[in-house]
Amino acid sequence: MKKIAILLFAVLFVESSYAQSQNRHSILVPDIQDFISLKCDFHMHTVFSDGSVWPDVRVEEAFLEGLDAIAITDHIEYLPHKKDVSTDHNRPYEIAKFAADAAGILLIQGTEITRGMPPGHLNALFISDANPIDTANYLDALSVAKEQGAFIFWNHPGWLPQAREGIKWYDEHSRLLEAGIINGIEIVNYNEWYPEAFKWCVEKNLTMMSNSDIHESLSSFNEKNEQELRPMTLVFAQEKSPEGIKEALFGGRTVAWFKGKVIGKEVYVRSLAEESLFLEETHFKNNNTEFRKLINKSDFHFYMERNGEEFHLKPRGEMIVTGSVDHPDYEFKITNFITENGELNIIL
Amino acid sequence: MKKIAILLFAVLFVESSYAQSQNRHSILVPDIQDFISLKCDFHMHTVFSDGSVWPDVRVEEAFLEGLDAIAITDHIEYLPHKKDVSTDHNRPYEIAKFAADAAGILLIQGTEITRGMPPGHLNALFISDANPIDTANYLDALSVAKEQGAFIFWNHPGWLPQAREGIKWYDEHSRLLEAGIINGIEIVNYNEWYPEAFKWCVEKNLTMMSNSDIHESLSSFNEKNEQELRPMTLVFAQEKSPEGIKEALFGGRTVAWFKGKVIGKEVYVRSLAEESLFLEETHFKNNNTEFRKLINKSDFHFYMERNGEEFHLKPRGEMIVTGSVDHPDYEFKITNFITENGELNIIL
Amino acid sequence: MKKIAILLFAVLFVESSYAQSQNRHSILVPDIQDFISLKCDFHMHTVFSDGSVWPDVRVEEAFLEGLDAIAITDHIEYLPHKKDVSTDHNRPYEIAKFAADAAGILLIQGTEITRGMPPGHLNALFISDANPIDTANYLDALSVAKEQGAFIFWNHPGWLPQAREGIKWYDEHSRLLEAGIINGIEIVNYNEWYPEAFKWCVEKNLTMMSNSDIHESLSSFNEKNEQELRPMTLVFAQEKSPEGIKEALFGGRTVAWFKGKVIGKEVYVRSLAEESLFLEETHFKNNNTEFRKLINKSDFHFYMERNGEEFHLKPRGEMIVTGSVDHPDYEFKITNFITENGELNIIL
Amino acid sequence: MKKIAILLFAVLFVESSYAQSQNRHSILVPDIQDFISLKCDFHMHTVFSDGSVWPDVRVEEAFLEGLDAIAITDHIEYLPHKKDVSTDHNRPYEIAKFAADAAGILLIQGTEITRGMPPGHLNALFISDANPIDTANYLDALSVAKEQGAFIFWNHPGWLPQAREGIKWYDEHSRLLEAGIINGIEIVNYNEWYPEAFKWCVEKNLTMMSNSDIHESLSSFNEKNEQELRPMTLVFAQEKSPEGIKEALFGGRTVAWFKGKVIGKEVYVRSLAEESLFLEETHFKNNNTEFRKLINKSDFHFYMERNGEEFHLKPRGEMIVTGSVDHPDYEFKITNFITENGELNIIL
Repeated sequence: MKKIAILLFAVLFVESSYAQSQNRHSILVPDIQDFISLKCDFHMHTVFSDGSVWPDVRVEEAFLEGLDAIAITDHIEYLPHKKDVSTDHNRPYEIAKFAADAAGILLIQGTEITRGMPPGHLNALFISDANPIDTANYLDALSVAKEQGAFIFWNHPGWLPQAREGIKWYDEHSRLLEAGIINGIEIVNYNEWYPEAFKWCVEKNLTMMSNSDIHESLSSFNEKNEQELRPMTLVFAQEKSPEGIKEALFGGRTVAWFKGKVIGKEVYVRSLAEESLFLEETHFKNNNTEFRKLINKSDFHFYMERNGEEFHLKPRGEMIVTGSVDHPDYEFKITNFITENGELNIIL
Repeated sequence: MKKIAILLFAVLFVESSYAQSQNRHSILVPDIQDFISLKCDFHMHTVFSDGSVWPDVRVEEAFLEGLDAIAITDHIEYLPHKKDVSTDHNRPYEIAKFAADAAGILLIQGTEITRGMPPGHLNALFISDANPIDTANYLDALSVAKEQGAFIFWNHPGWLPQAREGIKWYDEHSRLLEAGIINGIEIVNYNEWYPEAFKWCVEKNLTMMSNSDIHESLSSFNEKNEQELRPMTLVFAQEKSPEGIKEALFGGRTVAWFKGKVIGKEVYVRSLAEESLFLEETHFKNNNTEFRKLINKSDFHFYMERNGEEFHLKPRGEMIVTGSVDHPDYEFKITNFITENGELNIIL
Repeated sequence: MKKIAILLFAVLFVESSYAQSQNRHSILVPDIQDFISLKCDFHMHTVFSDGSVWPDVRVEEAFLEGLDAIAITDHIEYLPHKKDVSTDHNRPYEIAKFAADAAGILLIQGTEITRGMPPGHLNALFISDANPIDTANYLDALSVAKEQGAFIFWNHPGWLPQAREGIKWYDEHSRLLEAGIINGIEIVNYNEWYPEAFKWCVEKNLTMMSNSDIHESLSSFNEKNEQELRPMTLVFAQEKSPEGIKEALFGGRTVAWFKGKVIGKEVYVRSLAEESLFLEETHFKNNNTEFRKLINKSDFHFYMERNGEEFHLKPRGEMIVTGSVDHPDYEFKITNFITENGELNIIL
Repeated sequence: MKKIAILLFAVLFVESSYAQSQNRHSILVPDIQDFISLKCDFHMHTVFSDGSVWPDVRVEEAFLEGLDAIAITDHIEYLPHKKDVSTDHNRPYEIAKFAADAAGILLIQGTEITRGMPPGHLNALFISDANPIDTANYLDALSVAKEQGAFIFWNHPGWLPQAREGIKWYDEHSRLLEAGIINGIEIVNYNEWYPEAFKWCVEKNLTMMSNSDIHESLSSFNEKNEQELRPMTLVFAQEKSPEGIKEALFGGRTVAWFKGKVIGKEVYVRSLAEESLFLEETHFKNNNTEFRKLINKSDFHFYMERNGEEFHLKPRGEMIVTGSVDHPDYEFKITNFITENGELNIIL
């Protein structure tokens, strides 16, 4: 019965829910290249389609886990709870909006257009009314979304039930691409990542998306997948706002962060590494050996190799590294930072 | 989109949800006095009243946390989601039933009759149809529940919004007691426990209940309250079945387990301690000192005092204790085992 | 200055160190085949050779981690602290003995005979005086140890500094084997395991050893190697005593437990699995599907495969498994239980 | 045998020990008032007196836990290991020095002058030779230390074996104070803090010290005392060097950090809070309520009260707080920040 009193008083609600005991986890991802780095998840479900939680739970989870922006993207066509729950496709957004505003989470209205393969499932973000997108023909649905200014991406192209014989690019996708309808692809979804989709994004200049597609509660999702944090799309925006995110997504300025891996174009991945790692000046010399501290200022893990030795620099961790006084050489391969050119090499 | 495939095949559903990655936590509570000790939670909410999750989530949470039985008890009268969610009061039970059967969780149909104080909120368990309980007069509601054979208890008697001037027993409660309508009281609800209600239970021969009253997800609930496990009612039953639980509840055979405290009648609390603790034979003597191992075979914490020294025997923990060879004396006060006679003293 | 008072009173010492706050972790490994399963570590160091801790720390660590028996095996020949620390090779045992007796840990006197390869390093257990083993010729050292009744095993045969070109069996080892001097080999040492050594043990009927070779503190060791528990040798003994362990080691009744892997002869590994896993009776049927609970009563992890699906049954975990009512089939491959015949298959 | 190879090559040693797998925990304590905030522990033991570890372990522990400076302070007079370990009082410092230099830890030479009460135990820091401090008369010992330029503080004045009838200031302490020999007092030692000693420091202008007095391994110490971090003395120095620390200690610029409590003069404690907490601009208004984010940029816990509500802002945590648009009021009591004026009040 806790919530009766709470819901009568909006102020009390917020103080009770957040101020008293709920601490947001702060995630350190460095800003790069004059952009603000935003932690985002653009694919998730609630009881309004086949998810297990009320829409405001998605906001609370995002707040606590340290995200900046989310989109709730319930299915248009797949409504297993429709016997009991409203089929108004705008309700998840409307219900979650106040909690998002109060928590300072950017809430982007979205939906999932859910069809067989091809074209499979597609998310539309930045829509203003989800109900007219409920059409018989998927091209009509996409057209309505586009008229609302949507950013559209292809979800989980390698998802087994729709890719029994492997991940595949269909003619339909070529047509959608040529018509300017598809703007991105999930290279990461739930607990999978698709190297093939990563290549498509590079070749075809599509935006890389990395989303949770969460249906259950966040804690269950993270425990089941044995991970610290859900998959995120890192967005490099000119401003922290829905408009800023929209401009960045259309501009292709994203990187996938998934189970410790940082995956994207080298131009962004390299900057993330460079802005995270800091090599202090030498604090001690012994004969020809110099000793320096290597500091990770971010919440990324760094799995590194140097001269055949492997080591793991943890989030906000610090290590001592040594070098030759005469020929110092601090070149590292970061095996969990992956670009179109393979694992990232960096010289500090 | 993970769930589409899953829901097409019930077998796959269960294998995917449970068999693959979801491990139930096993909680060790010893059986006592020829009874089976069952871990139960008889008070919780879903989106069908003011909770945040779909009904089957309550089953999954109970399974993973190691419970034996639960009751979903959505409010009859308080339905903040009614604009979007069905008001059929039987739906939470119906929806959760298959998951409960599959998981081996005993699901008891219940509801919360939600009125101002007095009489406050009352839970009815073992009902067969919640809809006719939706009546204008609370006495009618209780009467309908009783006709269905309900076990009825008074919820959170010390809940601040209904006890601004302190926890209080009203004349209405005396009348309900005399009429045989109230069978128990929550001595623990959410993050509170009520010593006054504990006394009432002892004096008036009412069954002690200890429930979560959870609205949010379990992980959020446990983290917010900084606890390992939700509050539970330990039920000492003749058999592991709804009937067994019902007979035990009417028989008053329960103990509250809450934030490490074990609270109840000494006749049960003492047995729980005695069946949990085991003092091994002496394994070493040094002059007049003998050394023995004290083993906790349960998942209870034991905060103990002996000769002015305090120590903490953890769940399934083991310690070395010493005594005089000539006059061994293993008397302990267990400060977190609380009975009508105060903290429990035990001689091993 | 805490310890001054403590050391003046042996009783106080023990109560303070153990009884008040130090809880032993209980590790559940099932007994098998009428033997008692003992958790042992037969290779570790202290400040008396090149380790970092005082000898009684090894006892405390073993107690807290849940072991039954240890051997401290400081190097005879490698004493980097000899400028500051006594070179009496019996001192580590003598110092640790009281703490071991008080804690109920079986302390077996041992030492490490430390030579270049071949024959490399060899541990001698069950010795009575380590000082005469300090001889110029390693054969003399082994001979003295044997006269004291030692069980001798070859340490870390694949250790890189002594196996630059790979793990190798030398003629010297054949001679030691033929002379009955070598009784076992470490198939696990520190953070490595040696499949080749495992084969040698099977072929040549040598006892398999799995030891920590710890030099640092236990917490540092476990964290550095990202593991829950140190490597252990599981010994299947007729009684819990040094004599029982000695008889079992000479009898070859051991299994290696290392980073979740259980490695040994199928005759023992299969028994460990069979005594750990329990499949409950069917608790629910749905059409042709039966639902049953699979329970892990041990602290082993089980990484299992069944019909192409992988899952992880955690220590003391429980899962729901399903089968066909008409043709139930509960055959599992346990991929982390490794025998001379490969991964273990088990039918429940 | 891991260490043989390691010790042959100093560079390898450092790379192996630190660079490969050992991550330093970075502790965020803000700099204040143009001073650098240094995390220090000036009281600890090794096998050279009654501790359990080799001296370099103390450096490794300090590095991993995120400290800037330590002093090893083995007892002069209490040497329970003297049968086996050198009694040269300078050896702990000499042995630990290389590891400290390599790790970038400031190692200050110290010792503990260990007498009955009065004057009890006194630590001398910044000494150059501990051996001549080994004298029969404690005044002589202190005199020798002072000649070496020592900073001297009284240890654990409330330690039970020397304060059976309560903590007490003796005439001897007055004499030492008047003679300028005592410069500080431990207001925190091991698992205790002494409010009386805190008052003495304020009244008599003595430096407040907060030290671990660790004898066991750090992990054992922290687990036994159920704490995240050992007690630390926060030193506000003009430069990060032994000289900088010495100047700050003689200048009285310290604060105690112990089990989440921050204890010291308000002039420093207030600055620590002010430099840690940041209140963002309003991000949302609803009627007369404004919503703002409160950010903790430090690794301090903040247990706060505001308008009768209690909450806990965790290390690097963030929360939403609300206020009246017309009359915003952000005054907090921080109950775990303790000064000579009681719990700290702060207006953001």
